[in-house]
Amino acid sequence: MAPPHPFDPLSAAEITAAVSLVKKAHGAGLFFHVVSLQEPRKAAMTEWLAAPETTPRPARVAEVVVIENPAGTVYDGLVDITTGKITAWEKLTGMQPIILMEELQHVENVVRSDPMVIEQCVLSGVPREDMHKIYCDPWTIGYDERFGSDVRLQQALMYYRPDIDNTQYQYPLDFCPIYDGNKDAIIAIDIPKVRRPLSKVAPLDYHHMAQEKRGGYRDDVKPINISQPEGVSFSVEGNEISWQNWRFHVGFNYREGPIFNNVRFVDNGVERPIFYRMSLVEMVVPYGNPERPHQRKHAFDLGEYGAGYMSNSLSLGCDCKGSISYLDADMPTRTGGVRTIKNAVCIHEEDDGILFKHTDFRDDSTIVTRARKLIVQNIFTAANYEYAVQWIFHQDGTIEPNIRLTGILNTYIMNPGEDTHGWGTQVYPGVNAHNHQHLFCLRINPNLDGGNKNSVFLSDAVASDAPVGSAENFYGNAFYAKRTRLETTKEAKTDFNWSTMRSWDMVNENNVHPYSGKPVSYKLVSREVPTLLPKPQSLVWKRAAFARHTVHVTKYADDQLYPAGRHVPQTSGEPSLGLPEWIGEGNDSIVNTDIVLWHTFGLTHFPAPEDYPIMPAEPIVLLLRPRHFFASNPVMDVPPSYSVTPSQILAKKGVYDATDKMSTLVLGGRSHGANGVNGSHCCTNGTNGVNGHSTNGVNGHATNGVNGHATNGVNGHATNGVNGHATNGINGH
Amino acid sequence: MAPPHPFDPLSAAEITAAVSLVKKAHGAGLFFHVVSLQEPRKAAMTEWLAAPETTPRPARVAEVVVIENPAGTVYDGLVDITTGKITAWEKLTGMQPIILMEELQHVENVVRSDPMVIEQCVLSGVPREDMHKIYCDPWTIGYDERFGSDVRLQQALMYYRPDIDNTQYQYPLDFCPIYDGNKDAIIAIDIPKVRRPLSKVAPLDYHHMAQEKRGGYRDDVKPINISQPEGVSFSVEGNEISWQNWRFHVGFNYREGPIFNNVRFVDNGVERPIFYRMSLVEMVVPYGNPERPHQRKHAFDLGEYGAGYMSNSLSLGCDCKGSISYLDADMPTRTGGVRTIKNAVCIHEEDDGILFKHTDFRDDSTIVTRARKLIVQNIFTAANYEYAVQWIFHQDGTIEPNIRLTGILNTYIMNPGEDTHGWGTQVYPGVNAHNHQHLFCLRINPNLDGGNKNSVFLSDAVASDAPVGSAENFYGNAFYAKRTRLETTKEAKTDFNWSTMRSWDMVNENNVHPYSGKPVSYKLVSREVPTLLPKPQSLVWKRAAFARHTVHVTKYADDQLYPAGRHVPQTSGEPSLGLPEWIGEGNDSIVNTDIVLWHTFGLTHFPAPEDYPIMPAEPIVLLLRPRHFFASNPVMDVPPSYSVTPSQILAKKGVYDATDKMSTLVLGGRSHGANGVNGSHCCTNGTNGVNGHSTNGVNGHATNGVNGHATNGVNGHATNGVNGHATNGINGH
Repeated sequence: MAPPHPFDPLSAAEITAAVSLVKKAHGAGLFFHVVSLQEPRKAAMTEWLAAPETTPRPARVAEVVVIENPAGTVYDGLVDITTGKITAWEKLTGMQPIILMEELQHVENVVRSDPMVIEQCVLSGVPREDMHKIYCDPWTIGYDERFGSDVRLQQALMYYRPDIDNTQYQYPLDFCPIYDGNKDAIIAIDIPKVRRPLSKVAPLDYHHMAQEKRGGYRDDVKPINISQPEGVSFSVEGNEISWQNWRFHVGFNYREGPIFNNVRFVDNGVERPIFYRMSLVEMVVPYGNPERPHQRKHAFDLGEYGAGYMSNSLSLGCDCKGSISYLDADMPTRTGGVRTIKNAVCIHEEDDGILFKHTDFRDDSTIVTRARKLIVQNIFTAANYEYAVQWIFHQDGTIEPNIRLTGILNTYIMNPGEDTHGWGTQVYPGVNAHNHQHLFCLRINPNLDGGNKNSVFLSDAVASDAPVGSAENFYGNAFYAKRTRLETTKEAKTDFNWSTMRSWDMVNENNVHPYSGKPVSYKLVSREVPTLLPKPQSLVWKRAAFARHTVHVTKYADDQLYPAGRHVPQTSGEPSLGLPEWIGEGNDSIVNTDIVLWHTFGLTHFPAPEDYPIMPAEPIVLLLRPRHFFASNPVMDVPPSYSVTPSQILAKKGVYDATDKMSTLVLGGRSHGANGVNGSHCCTNGTNGVNGHSTNGVNGHATNGVNGHATNGVNGHATNGVNGHATNGINGH
Repeated sequence: MAPPHPFDPLSAAEITAAVSLVKKAHGAGLFFHVVSLQEPRKAAMTEWLAAPETTPRPARVAEVVVIENPAGTVYDGLVDITTGKITAWEKLTGMQPIILMEELQHVENVVRSDPMVIEQCVLSGVPREDMHKIYCDPWTIGYDERFGSDVRLQQALMYYRPDIDNTQYQYPLDFCPIYDGNKDAIIAIDIPKVRRPLSKVAPLDYHHMAQEKRGGYRDDVKPINISQPEGVSFSVEGNEISWQNWRFHVGFNYREGPIFNNVRFVDNGVERPIFYRMSLVEMVVPYGNPERPHQRKHAFDLGEYGAGYMSNSLSLGCDCKGSISYLDADMPTRTGGVRTIKNAVCIHEEDDGILFKHTDFRDDSTIVTRARKLIVQNIFTAANYEYAVQWIFHQDGTIEPNIRLTGILNTYIMNPGEDTHGWGTQVYPGVNAHNHQHLFCLRINPNLDGGNKNSVFLSDAVASDAPVGSAENFYGNAFYAKRTRLETTKEAKTDFNWSTMRSWDMVNENNVHPYSGKPVSYKLVSREVPTLLPKPQSLVWKRAAFARHTVHVTKYADDQLYPAGRHVPQTSGEPSLGLPEWIGEGNDSIVNTDIVLWHTFGLTHFPAPEDYPIMPAEPIVLLLRPRHFFASNPVMDVPPSYSVTPSQILAKKGVYDATDKMSTLVLGGRSHGANGVNGSHCCTNGTNGVNGHSTNGVNGHATNGVNGHATNGVNGHATNGVNGHATNGINGH
């Protein structure tokens, strides 16, 4: 068997080997929170990528984070799987590693049998014998200053299901037990001043049994079939993906989910590096209700729970449609086993409408080329929410991170007539969905054209300073792209500016475009960039420092991956971990060096009843676009659907016609007949159009047209036209 | 034959009838610039829509705008086709009607034989005998104060084609003839101070002949077939479209292209009005080079040329793929004939990924429902540019205007080594593509739930005023949607605000949502909202007043359709026509009344070589979303791909499985085998997942899992697990 690619995630065997070495050295009672590839150090890896045949293969190293129970002591170490050695083993204090599904799931059983919780349930109106109908979404506690970071805590957001098939989010309970994982016990319950008894409202469920009771499904949805009888246009070899001119490696880890390494584009036969690494590295979901203990609801879904750990097994014809390839993911279990998430990533292509088109109005020469896109998708479920993260690669060199938010709103109970004070919305009787934000952090280590020497420029669309009426700007229409190079990490703390429609250009100043004179670049175009609404110095602001600005830029360092810290649960934000630590005073130069761009984007969600009981997906899209990177349009070699030149129009031959023959005409509507649709030539203006061989058209051999051999036209050999050899025209000869 | 729907565009017969009446009354020598439906007056139409059986059908009225030659006198009138009467006929002074393709096409012939132009061509390096290789894109002149608005002018942007099949935009000429349509002659030539001889650069063409010479097309693009064997889910009756719960009428005119009238949504059997009318009504493309005469390049593509007039005949399997329905459009010719644009509008549906999804992490209950969308598309060619305008209707009540910009950059010549001064980019040797903006104006007349009483609120995401540490906001996380009702047209001149991610809510305050207590609304979510970069008091600012703000709101008036004026060519902007005229002092109340929202959006384009010689499509997307409009999620009755409840998971029966069976698995990649992909149940976590019946999983009947009947798991009946009946677990019984 071929050795793994150095960027490949740890295999099941490697996880097992690492666990075994650790157990041997440190005992069997450990809980394994992380057993994941430590990606090769970039210097070594860059050498290897340049000459894999002759360069030593980087070692396979596992990051291992464990908790030793019952003391709850945390160790963070490295295991060199290649040599079988533990190369680092550090005891951490005041830090909690990522929380595991196993820990979360356990708490539901604990609350059901805890006397204090049972008492609160009864007070809320749940019969004592109904404790099996009590559910909770345990979250890591966020941060609670009463308990600090030394004990491992969860907050249990409480719900009730009258029936096992009811969505619990419509029956929240008003109190919040706190679970201590070291003691394996509920140690406190947060009880609000105003009590809110369990709602008795009729359930509104989204599943098929409920819908069938409501009258069943609509019957006017006809199948849309997608097939690729000749196969797909991509190939997947291990984790290396090749599609059109794109080449990249898809990794995967417990935290980020998919990771894109060594992203490159084949430009006229030459593989040009673009990004060394690209992924989502963090997110935070702060809720806007200031009443305790809701301030603790600000999940760092990646750092606290892990997009990888929470990934769905995707399903053919369901999550993904068409011809699909999948990647599995091997994850450790808490006790040191391995679980495989089947189909953690799906890969497929889709038609994407028009790639480019032009028709010359004077001669009907035309080209229409259709686009397609490659979608690499991962979906993870963070308790109530689903995040469908699509990384879309376009033929023209554009990369489109595209996230659809769906799932279920986090809800809290409200009394009849209670004022939400604007901090939430009553989406259903007794159900208060609190305002919240989803703020994602995209991390990009650019490597445009190799060499790892890049810079970042602001690009701002601004008017000329010269006033209207001045010699330089007499008519006042002058505007340009003001480009500002970010010199230091301090300067690089930058925010969106709508009035200049700011974008950020990652550039390699050493490679200047021969025509435009501008450095090769990738432009970050991102518009869903809300400010962090928790105020400066607030708890969330302190913990989620990455979200204070739209963009940060740092100098590359191998282990600076996670902008809210390597261990996120229960951080106090004092000091703020991650980015602020690395930036410090901010005097590091980020010019023409190996840099990392950190981009925060997302949306602010003020819930509405349409989002309930399950949310239609809401999209967030951003673009990474090549500018001054390619000599010219890089997709002119994509086969068009139709292309005809002016001389071919005149000669009536030579047309390139690869029109999709599967498409069908649906009758109906104000269409005058068969001409045009199934006519002799595609994509020009047809039989009765403006140009071409139209009967009543403007140009060409028209009978009543304007130009050409028109009978009643304006120009050309028109009979009643305006110009040319027109019989009744004004400019006829 | 049934009479036309009152919103239907004029038929060919109606155009002919109107022309005939006008010719009879005013002579045969007229040029017809507009012969188009005057839509029914809203008051009468509203009555008719409410009771079409018993209300008199609104008359069919044609707007007719003509030029009487040779004097060039302009008349603007109305013809009642029903009664055969001209009901209005007004002579205009200092106004020029929309320019016609016929007029534009004519000028190319004029320049080729004009001695002054020939002289300039020769000076530029074009042989005298090559005048048939001279081309021009004639544009209406914009505004040139030397000539005013009484004469009808065009500016001829000059190009050369060495070969008929070369793209002319790579060989611009440096001078600009001005054509007087009344005199049918070139009356001036704008010659720059610095001369720029014709470029001798090798051509770079995008058509198939050129690509074949460059090595041909890539061969790794496999077909993606889309078919609907059971037919489509929409119906088109005349111009009335019905799809899922949407119902609307698609009109079409010379200027706006597609127009959406009487847009409504069937909500639990009840047709609820949403918008009375929605369309693009104007756009402006200002160029940012201040050197004369480039300030004149600021095309109002709709008002000066007409999206309808410039519409492409769309082609099956080429512009549109799948099962497509089309609408034709009948347009007048200049001499009063009729030309039919076949397939001016295409209508089809597409799969749209995940509509909603949720998996319960504790019990594996799952629902996945796929979305589809209906696309109503029109593509128009404005000389060099193509605008593919898609109106996308989503099942969940969202409307998505979506525009793709493609075609060719407008170009100007530059000398070798010349400084662009930042006003443009050298995209190819000798080719300067000037900075420009595309600013579109969307007009919406909302009618939420009928009654024509609506208001507009700003919605701004803001933090609580209460400081961190205060009782009201102790942890500093409080934020809310600040809603500000716009009271007057003056107040309604509003701009985007990125720091609050501002949106605008069109609401009916008379209909309050029973749960949320908020009025029913449609929210405008639009982020590509550049400021108008031509400065205040500049020529463009004066002419394109609509673009000064992101949103304007006015009180509805029947004839206020075009925000830069009804007749746009050659307006000086003194005074500014359209919106500023209607708003005046701005004291009109726009509260709870019949209102129109005008929204300017678009993008600023700083060209790059990737855009040359033809541009990969660049998208602009905005959303109109129902909020507090539906009782709950309105798509729960869309058949899911897969749905299973917790009790069905336990019972192992009752699953709803409508998984797409056409989808196929593509082998390759890091997938461990057959389990999961083709396993017994879709969309849950499969055999080795976290939950469910996994062998090494976390929950359920896992062998090494955490919860449930796990053998080595943490919880439940685990053998080596943590909790439950685990044999080796920490919390085992």
